[in-house]
Amino acid sequence: MPDRLRAAIVGATGYTSLELLRWLLRHPQVKVTVLASRKTEQPISEIFPELLGRIDLPIEPFEPKVIAQKADIAFLCVPHATAMQYAPELLSVGLRVIDLSADYRLKDTRLYEKWYKHPHTDAENLAHAVYGLPDLFARQIASAKLIANPGCYTTSAILPLAPLVKAGLIDSQDIIVNAASGISGAGRNPVPQHHFPERNESFEAYAIGTHRHAPEIAEGIKLGSGKEVGITFVPHLVPMDRGILATIYTKPTVLATIDLALQAWRSAYGSSPFVRIRTGAPPSTKYVINTNYIDMAIYQYGNRWVIISALDNMVKGAAGQAIENMNLVAGFPQAMGLN
Amino acid sequence: MPDRLRAAIVGATGYTSLELLRWLLRHPQVKVTVLASRKTEQPISEIFPELLGRIDLPIEPFEPKVIAQKADIAFLCVPHATAMQYAPELLSVGLRVIDLSADYRLKDTRLYEKWYKHPHTDAENLAHAVYGLPDLFARQIASAKLIANPGCYTTSAILPLAPLVKAGLIDSQDIIVNAASGISGAGRNPVPQHHFPERNESFEAYAIGTHRHAPEIAEGIKLGSGKEVGITFVPHLVPMDRGILATIYTKPTVLATIDLALQAWRSAYGSSPFVRIRTGAPPSTKYVINTNYIDMAIYQYGNRWVIISALDNMVKGAAGQAIENMNLVAGFPQAMGLN
Amino acid sequence: MPDRLRAAIVGATGYTSLELLRWLLRHPQVKVTVLASRKTEQPISEIFPELLGRIDLPIEPFEPKVIAQKADIAFLCVPHATAMQYAPELLSVGLRVIDLSADYRLKDTRLYEKWYKHPHTDAENLAHAVYGLPDLFARQIASAKLIANPGCYTTSAILPLAPLVKAGLIDSQDIIVNAASGISGAGRNPVPQHHFPERNESFEAYAIGTHRHAPEIAEGIKLGSGKEVGITFVPHLVPMDRGILATIYTKPTVLATIDLALQAWRSAYGSSPFVRIRTGAPPSTKYVINTNYIDMAIYQYGNRWVIISALDNMVKGAAGQAIENMNLVAGFPQAMGLN
Amino acid sequence: MPDRLRAAIVGATGYTSLELLRWLLRHPQVKVTVLASRKTEQPISEIFPELLGRIDLPIEPFEPKVIAQKADIAFLCVPHATAMQYAPELLSVGLRVIDLSADYRLKDTRLYEKWYKHPHTDAENLAHAVYGLPDLFARQIASAKLIANPGCYTTSAILPLAPLVKAGLIDSQDIIVNAASGISGAGRNPVPQHHFPERNESFEAYAIGTHRHAPEIAEGIKLGSGKEVGITFVPHLVPMDRGILATIYTKPTVLATIDLALQAWRSAYGSSPFVRIRTGAPPSTKYVINTNYIDMAIYQYGNRWVIISALDNMVKGAAGQAIENMNLVAGFPQAMGLN
Repeated sequence: MPDRLRAAIVGATGYTSLELLRWLLRHPQVKVTVLASRKTEQPISEIFPELLGRIDLPIEPFEPKVIAQKADIAFLCVPHATAMQYAPELLSVGLRVIDLSADYRLKDTRLYEKWYKHPHTDAENLAHAVYGLPDLFARQIASAKLIANPGCYTTSAILPLAPLVKAGLIDSQDIIVNAASGISGAGRNPVPQHHFPERNESFEAYAIGTHRHAPEIAEGIKLGSGKEVGITFVPHLVPMDRGILATIYTKPTVLATIDLALQAWRSAYGSSPFVRIRTGAPPSTKYVINTNYIDMAIYQYGNRWVIISALDNMVKGAAGQAIENMNLVAGFPQAMGLN
Repeated sequence: MPDRLRAAIVGATGYTSLELLRWLLRHPQVKVTVLASRKTEQPISEIFPELLGRIDLPIEPFEPKVIAQKADIAFLCVPHATAMQYAPELLSVGLRVIDLSADYRLKDTRLYEKWYKHPHTDAENLAHAVYGLPDLFARQIASAKLIANPGCYTTSAILPLAPLVKAGLIDSQDIIVNAASGISGAGRNPVPQHHFPERNESFEAYAIGTHRHAPEIAEGIKLGSGKEVGITFVPHLVPMDRGILATIYTKPTVLATIDLALQAWRSAYGSSPFVRIRTGAPPSTKYVINTNYIDMAIYQYGNRWVIISALDNMVKGAAGQAIENMNLVAGFPQAMGLN
Repeated sequence: MPDRLRAAIVGATGYTSLELLRWLLRHPQVKVTVLASRKTEQPISEIFPELLGRIDLPIEPFEPKVIAQKADIAFLCVPHATAMQYAPELLSVGLRVIDLSADYRLKDTRLYEKWYKHPHTDAENLAHAVYGLPDLFARQIASAKLIANPGCYTTSAILPLAPLVKAGLIDSQDIIVNAASGISGAGRNPVPQHHFPERNESFEAYAIGTHRHAPEIAEGIKLGSGKEVGITFVPHLVPMDRGILATIYTKPTVLATIDLALQAWRSAYGSSPFVRIRTGAPPSTKYVINTNYIDMAIYQYGNRWVIISALDNMVKGAAGQAIENMNLVAGFPQAMGLN
Repeated sequence: MPDRLRAAIVGATGYTSLELLRWLLRHPQVKVTVLASRKTEQPISEIFPELLGRIDLPIEPFEPKVIAQKADIAFLCVPHATAMQYAPELLSVGLRVIDLSADYRLKDTRLYEKWYKHPHTDAENLAHAVYGLPDLFARQIASAKLIANPGCYTTSAILPLAPLVKAGLIDSQDIIVNAASGISGAGRNPVPQHHFPERNESFEAYAIGTHRHAPEIAEGIKLGSGKEVGITFVPHLVPMDRGILATIYTKPTVLATIDLALQAWRSAYGSSPFVRIRTGAPPSTKYVINTNYIDMAIYQYGNRWVIISALDNMVKGAAGQAIENMNLVAGFPQAMGLN
């Protein structure tokens, strides 16, 4: 690869694409060379007026061969089901692919089909796709052709839980993940429930028992710990732009202590540039928004442990983590361009 | 009319209908007997979950004769252009009509057609429609068959300005109305620009020189003062549910003083139950939301006067003022059910 | 008591006092006759500009005998520890007292002292104080001299849980109450953590294991069910004015079904005017704010039940419930003035 | 100066300091070497938890000689009146100073004393201080010892207006600046009026005729255009964290056209990296927050021009513009570290 990595964004009109651009335009070793979309030929600065004067690329149709001439790596920001149509074409022309959709996250196609109500048509690439949690799987990511970038809620749950499950410190069958997210996580499509007067001054749970991040959390923890887990996952909507807070209720095992838990975290994430373990002020979404950090803390509460994690769903929960993955693939320092 | 006034709401699925219901369900002398819509037959408590257990009426299609059997007065909450189709039918079966659309606000059909890009098809009823600003036109309203309920921005501008123009205290040709509104004023349709992540943490001007309330403000002031005025009107959007603040820049005439201005206001609104003249803490939308009040204050600034008014766009700017009009028509005290 | 009940508000400068005034000024059978505070002699409309023109009472110092001449019932809106100084004086001059502080909620003074870090100095009145949850304890409330109005979080947890615990439908030792509140619940004192730029666009947990509503929830459920419970309670802050959503995780007992749970709720609250059991759209704070309703729903999630409840912390969680209690004491219908 | 500029922040505990740190920690040619405050010795990551793990400097007392050993340039983030005590000391030990307070903005000490109610005690340095608007005064800034960094509102008004006044395109005596700001502009002190429940869902004007940015706007335009102007300035508060929108009402002179206005802007700001002239989507605070851009647009409205400008009060309106000034002083490209 050349000194300056050339990046394509496919599916350029969504919020994750905008967030990628915000960070990549500031990355010292990357040049965005392609913006592709089948939806529009509008200039990107009309779609996202904040980009006026910051990037001057036309939006082009999705032509893998053309993209391969201009770019080394492609970020796939299209919806699930579309991603698994595009990824094979991009891979076949030699591009590295970081897919921000859910299509390559669940290894079991039957599980995928159950939750996404859609047949999985690319088992071949699914087989070698790497789950893109750099704080747990940096080595595999570095050599991956296809990276499944994790979901936002899932990152907030897997990172604090995997080391504790692996170390046998918590009951792996009794885990409750109560999470709350800002509204950018719902995407750019103006649905009635996210119309400003409906969403503002409103707090609610949704998708109780039906949210697709539930099986991904379980699979991600298994991948990071080697153990099956039982998860109850209930997401909520907070009237704010960005940020996820996960409040996780677990039961420590017999000899487990908070100190051992902190030790497990430190041992897992000692060299992770964006995992912060908090022992003073508890995590808040306020302290991580517009950054790539995930903050974690753990509290004893009677016979339970309450774990809090916080991240920005658009950064550590999407574009920022994708750039960490890109850095690893390109051989750059993991944190480059993300401070 | 019977002791308990029977009210129909036509166009029951919009925010103004919801706001009417919030207040009418609490009014001691009114019973809502009809909810009509051509859009849906869903129960009203599915459209507006907050109404669960509070009202049990089915939504029925728009059938004027059926409505006339069940109701004495109809609130028209349909969009402009539709209202002037429905109003004649409701009037012809003997109902009093309070139209919350813009169709009967501008007396000059050419002006209407210029701003609303639509021919006016009901000049006959337009001729006798009364502009429903109870604080200025209570007498005419009491005997009106058809009332054109004023716009939200327009109420915030006409009420403070009309008495000052009438008294010759300000230059009627040099008036700037800089107004800002919460987002409920934009209605219930989930358009991209009011998608929560777009609107939240955002402040902007819109419709500069093209907002339809501009000619209505001028016409309303003329109606209330007898004088033609020149208005520059620029509306803005504030990331909040409800509330309008108008910041009005005027030039006092030679002998005008703030005291004379206050006197003109007090003389005009001394018996108005919902006009509050503030001389201490300046008006804020916070002090009027969820109430039917309009607050006003006036300040000398060099050779200019700055006037501030505040109201709730859904109450004094829509449903609350409509209920004042209903009270006047029914012979109830103007403030009944609105405290 | 006279036809029109005369009410005093003691501690008139806080948010609960403002909320009481909003509702009482609209109550058909009540007249607010006293506003007392030791803090200020400012007119109430300077403290709360929204009250301008709506109430004209001076704020007077706390003089129980004077209050007794003017009022039949007193709402105590002072902080805990102060309330137990004032309540005995008000009771001794013959007033009925509804205390919105925490001083008479916990029957065990040692428990009180442990959580509130303050000796309890009024065991005598504590002995006969009635816990003011009208949906569970209406009969006792009707004849009470002193009513301990429940906390906001506590109401959101006790009402859905008590009937299920009583009916033996859930494991009483394994209950997690994950709750989130708007910021009015934190009171009117401008502390750094609730400064707008800190709180806006922010979501966080707080007081993990140390929130004083935890023991009150346990005691309230015991009072309503006869059973000891084990509660893990974690509150969160949502950047909005008002509203509480509780997401409650429980384990059903062997033969328990969702139908039996709904039946237990309906049997407990069939005649409660403000308890709404939702089976369609799930509860949201949006549907209850500015009302006295509490909404509840229950969902099966694997081997757990997830219960959601929502209420307005200032209404059903404070002033509205206090007015229900007042209505019961006065012999008025429970819902009077609260629609 | 060395390759890597060493920067001190004096008054490290305010929002402008936090914003400076956010940007400087990412600047490729700057190292923050000193954090000074007389208020606290807390670690900076306890004051601003978002900085945990990002900067490891202790907070030290204000000792100019010590600072001079460690730093080349100092950002003064202390309140006005304090700044003019500190600046002379910092200058005397050879540091370049960028003052973010108001102390060196107004050249006339009598004007300063009138508006700031405080004697000006440093006329000596005031005489050579340069007003730090890099888009108008880059040359003077490059060689300045002391830079008076402009106010947030003032930047939003001076930049669009100065070229138009200079070119004689608008009536310099008839200018209304109606501006609205997010709440971070009010600083970190938790005053009652910015307590979350007071400020949220609220929009209001404040300081009508008394805001200290009014004389600064007039002086800045004079500095940039050579002409005296008459300004009516009314600021408002928007319930959001950051962003200023100025809606400016002016009267074009006889032969002035919108095209000439755009030409005047382009000619003034053709090489300004952060001034964006918009002719499509109108400016919104949303498009500039968390960036150093100022967006401008101009509209004909009858016989008036309406000009809209937008910027982030914490970036272009404070810390970002300070860094532009620092870049100019250090000989770096004006935009370095600000993309």
